[in-house]
Amino acid sequence: MIMHSLKTKTTLLLNWYANPYHTPIFAAKALGFYADEDIKLAILEPTDPSDVTEIVGTEQVDIGLKAMLHTVAGHAKGFPISSVATLLDEPPTGLIALKSSGINTFHDITGKRVGYIGEFGKKIIDNLAQHAGIDQKDYQAVRIGMNVTDAICRDIIDAGIGFINFQKVELEQLRGDVNFLRLDQLAGLGCCCFCSIQYIVPDKTIQQQPETIRGFLKATQRGAAFTTEQPDEAFELLCQAKPQLRNELYKKIFLRTLPFFSRSMLNVARDWNKVNRYMQHLNIVDSKFDITTCYTNEYLPVVPYSDTAPIACCI
Amino acid sequence: MIMHSLKTKTTLLLNWYANPYHTPIFAAKALGFYADEDIKLAILEPTDPSDVTEIVGTEQVDIGLKAMLHTVAGHAKGFPISSVATLLDEPPTGLIALKSSGINTFHDITGKRVGYIGEFGKKIIDNLAQHAGIDQKDYQAVRIGMNVTDAICRDIIDAGIGFINFQKVELEQLRGDVNFLRLDQLAGLGCCCFCSIQYIVPDKTIQQQPETIRGFLKATQRGAAFTTEQPDEAFELLCQAKPQLRNELYKKIFLRTLPFFSRSMLNVARDWNKVNRYMQHLNIVDSKFDITTCYTNEYLPVVPYSDTAPIACCI
Repeated sequence: MIMHSLKTKTTLLLNWYANPYHTPIFAAKALGFYADEDIKLAILEPTDPSDVTEIVGTEQVDIGLKAMLHTVAGHAKGFPISSVATLLDEPPTGLIALKSSGINTFHDITGKRVGYIGEFGKKIIDNLAQHAGIDQKDYQAVRIGMNVTDAICRDIIDAGIGFINFQKVELEQLRGDVNFLRLDQLAGLGCCCFCSIQYIVPDKTIQQQPETIRGFLKATQRGAAFTTEQPDEAFELLCQAKPQLRNELYKKIFLRTLPFFSRSMLNVARDWNKVNRYMQHLNIVDSKFDITTCYTNEYLPVVPYSDTAPIACCI
Repeated sequence: MIMHSLKTKTTLLLNWYANPYHTPIFAAKALGFYADEDIKLAILEPTDPSDVTEIVGTEQVDIGLKAMLHTVAGHAKGFPISSVATLLDEPPTGLIALKSSGINTFHDITGKRVGYIGEFGKKIIDNLAQHAGIDQKDYQAVRIGMNVTDAICRDIIDAGIGFINFQKVELEQLRGDVNFLRLDQLAGLGCCCFCSIQYIVPDKTIQQQPETIRGFLKATQRGAAFTTEQPDEAFELLCQAKPQLRNELYKKIFLRTLPFFSRSMLNVARDWNKVNRYMQHLNIVDSKFDITTCYTNEYLPVVPYSDTAPIACCI
């Protein structure tokens, strides 16, 4: 028996531990924007980001966050999920290594230990190596999740996949000069849209609570506008909810992340098409896969909302 | 349609963000103890601890962690939950204030701002004040959740409820000398069992996955034994999963928490009875409430398990 009658909260499962990426959501909550939509938002964090797709896909939460690549892969696996909006547009993703590691080009991974996040990161590394003519036995792939900085500091890996605005900033602060090889450039993709972070929902939420999705996205877009327009205040609101983030490192990560917050929150068809071709290339989906089933902009506000600049933004 | 066929993971929702309290669980996971029981454990963290009872109570996760007091209160509200084991026995809880605040006895809250965690913390503060002959209008109660240290540092409150092994340690590190007034002594309770942290499960988990509960508790007890017997190694395993905890402050919190980990993990009838009387006193449950419906030791291993000392522990 599911105790529907006692459920009062809408659950949101983040893609990673709560961090500056999620400022628009924490700002919206602190400013009462969800309450304005009659939504009591319970924000949950995964300890292992690789758990998120299944938990959203098996309808154990109402809404989740996950990268575009994982949304497509989850859909292809049979999870009934769709992206209803974008949190972060194309955060540049790459191979991170200390300058002292001697890894200056992708060919330098020969003889090295390369950290990857999860199953798809492994496919990406192996595919890049194949194209570069590097045999799989000439480097060691090590699954380290999102903790690339810690894994390099612990000398578990020589290089690993991370974000220019996050783990690169962390590693620089802890250990000094860092090299960063953009995956999109290595793979000839043109952008890092495969790492764009999406708001994903199971079909059950769409069927049973469409108005909750609309209200959630309206409130979140107000939070995104506040974040980009009043960043210092927004970061303070994040820190009030998560005091562990109140330090210079996370402030720097926040400032480096600001340009990547999607203000329109729109799903961009060009990016989904590009990711679809890349996923086909990696043999994660087949050539008949219909990418348009993975996303919809139907639940986004028609007019982007800004509390501080409500009129004439396009004049 | 719930996608049961695609569900492979057992979800555990912690009582708070992942921190040294949860070392037995992270140690058990890293050491493969859950895998030994065929359990893929997905550990989730709440951003707001006040969300946990409802999420477990509405069967959105398989297992949760929550204080004894909240387990009783949730049960009384109609959530079909029971405690199946204990994580932390009676962590001393109290009113925390900087020495410089001038709050040396409970009477000194007069004219001050007092932080509380959630709805039951407010009842406890008000009840203590009533017994001390302090009028509710002579102090200001401020809901601040678990973030008492940050709220004191931000000058939002003068004192607040927290743990001797956690927020008191944090505040001392950040701001110097701290006063700590134990709630159990103020209330004449004799112990802080109302704050003991329990493993709670919804009835659905008991009905559909009793062997999962048994396997989870067996693996977790191995993790608890490892934590108390090899604390440095256990803390390192926690930090590998959560590198943000790799600092001196969390190491100190871990060391101060060690004595409170339950090694037997048993529910203690004496404590449940005491909490029942206290909850009746606070008018949270009525005098007919049957406390024995709130807990069971049926799923715990018959013989406590230790990997390092498997024999003769009682000789």
